[in-house]
Amino acid sequence: MNAFQVVNKEVDGYARRGRITTPHGIIETPCFMPVGTKATVKGLTPKQLEEEVEAQIVLANTYHLFLRPGHLLIEKLGGVHKFMGWTRPILTDSGGFQVFSLSSLRSIDEEGVTFRSPIDGTTHRLTPETSIAIQESLGADIIMAFDECTPYPATSKEALDSLELTARWAERSKQARRRSDNLLFGIIQGSTFPKLRRLSLDKTVAVGFDGYALGGLSVGEGQTAMYDVVNEFGSRLPEEAPRYLMGVGTPEDLLIAVAAGLDMFDCVMPTRNARNGMYFTRFGPLSIKQARFHEDQEPIDASCDCYTCRNFSRAYLRHLFMAKEILSSVLATIHNLRFYHRLMAGMREALTCGDFQRFKNSFLVDYKSQE
Amino acid sequence: MNAFQVVNKEVDGYARRGRITTPHGIIETPCFMPVGTKATVKGLTPKQLEEEVEAQIVLANTYHLFLRPGHLLIEKLGGVHKFMGWTRPILTDSGGFQVFSLSSLRSIDEEGVTFRSPIDGTTHRLTPETSIAIQESLGADIIMAFDECTPYPATSKEALDSLELTARWAERSKQARRRSDNLLFGIIQGSTFPKLRRLSLDKTVAVGFDGYALGGLSVGEGQTAMYDVVNEFGSRLPEEAPRYLMGVGTPEDLLIAVAAGLDMFDCVMPTRNARNGMYFTRFGPLSIKQARFHEDQEPIDASCDCYTCRNFSRAYLRHLFMAKEILSSVLATIHNLRFYHRLMAGMREALTCGDFQRFKNSFLVDYKSQE
Repeated sequence: MNAFQVVNKEVDGYARRGRITTPHGIIETPCFMPVGTKATVKGLTPKQLEEEVEAQIVLANTYHLFLRPGHLLIEKLGGVHKFMGWTRPILTDSGGFQVFSLSSLRSIDEEGVTFRSPIDGTTHRLTPETSIAIQESLGADIIMAFDECTPYPATSKEALDSLELTARWAERSKQARRRSDNLLFGIIQGSTFPKLRRLSLDKTVAVGFDGYALGGLSVGEGQTAMYDVVNEFGSRLPEEAPRYLMGVGTPEDLLIAVAAGLDMFDCVMPTRNARNGMYFTRFGPLSIKQARFHEDQEPIDASCDCYTCRNFSRAYLRHLFMAKEILSSVLATIHNLRFYHRLMAGMREALTCGDFQRFKNSFLVDYKSQE
Repeated sequence: MNAFQVVNKEVDGYARRGRITTPHGIIETPCFMPVGTKATVKGLTPKQLEEEVEAQIVLANTYHLFLRPGHLLIEKLGGVHKFMGWTRPILTDSGGFQVFSLSSLRSIDEEGVTFRSPIDGTTHRLTPETSIAIQESLGADIIMAFDECTPYPATSKEALDSLELTARWAERSKQARRRSDNLLFGIIQGSTFPKLRRLSLDKTVAVGFDGYALGGLSVGEGQTAMYDVVNEFGSRLPEEAPRYLMGVGTPEDLLIAVAAGLDMFDCVMPTRNARNGMYFTRFGPLSIKQARFHEDQEPIDASCDCYTCRNFSRAYLRHLFMAKEILSSVLATIHNLRFYHRLMAGMREALTCGDFQRFKNSFLVDYKSQE
């Protein structure tokens, strides 16, 4: 049985509604995956994620869990689901992106990457084989092939070398698999060069994966260049597999990318911005520290059904933020994640009704209205 | 109608079970009040406080809310219950203790206290009249007379002057009342001098309050001196009114104080220690950062019914603490507050069964067994 089914699809477009079946349950797509870097979505209990956010799946970071507390400990304790008390699906990334963005003293060779831990300075090595082994120890439902996230900017020669290394690592990642109960996704690189993206796509599809991701975006290339890749390649990724746009993005980005045919997304924006007092709303983002909210009795977004909006005024949320209270991060994270999840649910509903373009355009008009 | 009823009482002792009726509901005593300094119990949503902790009442600090965001704002927004989204009873202290412990440049005169805000250096003044007015603006169910918290150590002359000032302020606090829907408690000072405690008690009772508190304890006098005051005066506070021991204490302190006849308690210990990775258990406190918990699959306390103990291992909780994750504070706070509330519920149950001394002794034996 194919783990992915397209439920329905736009008549005159690429957006589609789908369903991914995993060992820990079904994921309705398009979907957003909250980032739970160190086996916790910062500030929220799994109960809040289930009941207040209605999250279907969370992402955990292989790199972080490998360094602390260690994947072998987590395996010994029954896997990452049990460890973090989360019973629904989990996706782990390959660790590649973090090695390149967070570690010092990294050296890349054909076999893999050597890097230094920012926690204690110890030296570690990741290869396609170890990345897959770590991810299988953690026991995620969806795991990612080990790739080199091509830095931006890159010359076409650098991008070509990088995508070819990623393609060889993709093959090795696939060979390294020992479990048959997870889904393995391949990652397409190629920077902002359409020809190289196409080459990377061909090479990745030739290896054959359960799903395909666009990697190496949202790394400094800017919105226009990112949209160009998404629009050109979203619908070219294999139709019969889930399509995942890694590390993206704003609410607008998600609408554009779903329209381009993508199904899955993750981003730290809703959670990180929450901790900085930034709330997403239907009418654009709102910074709660602004003095104009001092006496504001209204909720963040009157049309939002989240716990935060149902119970607290902007004045109270501003007070919590100004007083540096932990609850400020908690309530903002609940709201922002709920906002993202309602946006995805709205897209799914619109796809069911054959109404996606109207939904998208109406959202984008509202969202820009505050600016 | 009397707002306080003694439900039952030990035959050969002073411990009692009671019930306080307030505008926002009934409080079963003996009870513990989580500290919600700035209109939030640090890290927990009101929903978690209700459902996971089963808190009956929380304490908010007049001093902090007066300085930020200001009591007039909170009044304008519908009172502190609505502001913080808490529908059950709230007690506010008078602000006196914080003026003395947190503010610089304070000067005391017959009328009141002048002090400087640690937030922005502005100068403020609190008097019995303004303290009551602020507390009535906030709209707490139980408010406290404005007192001078006698510093420790104090000579008997200093303690006498201080308690006499507190007694005059008690009378003025009572006269300053404008609302009839709250309960006003008086505070007994007198440091560790039995004669002065008795004098303060007499003077406070002569003014006449809805409840009585022992103040000026847990300020450096040590456990023995504190127990002496509690044991001598707990049962001398008026029988027909709730008796409140302010700012105390450890689980052992609560058992001793309930045995001495006290009904109500507040303390930052369960919440503050939680943020430092200290968990209370039936067998004594446990510091989660210890290396021996690295691989520990057991919950903090197998006999605990809290969300944290039902869902997470010591190994995971240690990981969260070491990684400085917000969720560490949240889960430890849930556990510690639930521990305190189960302890109080256990005492109430034991009082109903006429079994309080056995409950107390058995708890104390277990609690010391880890040391």
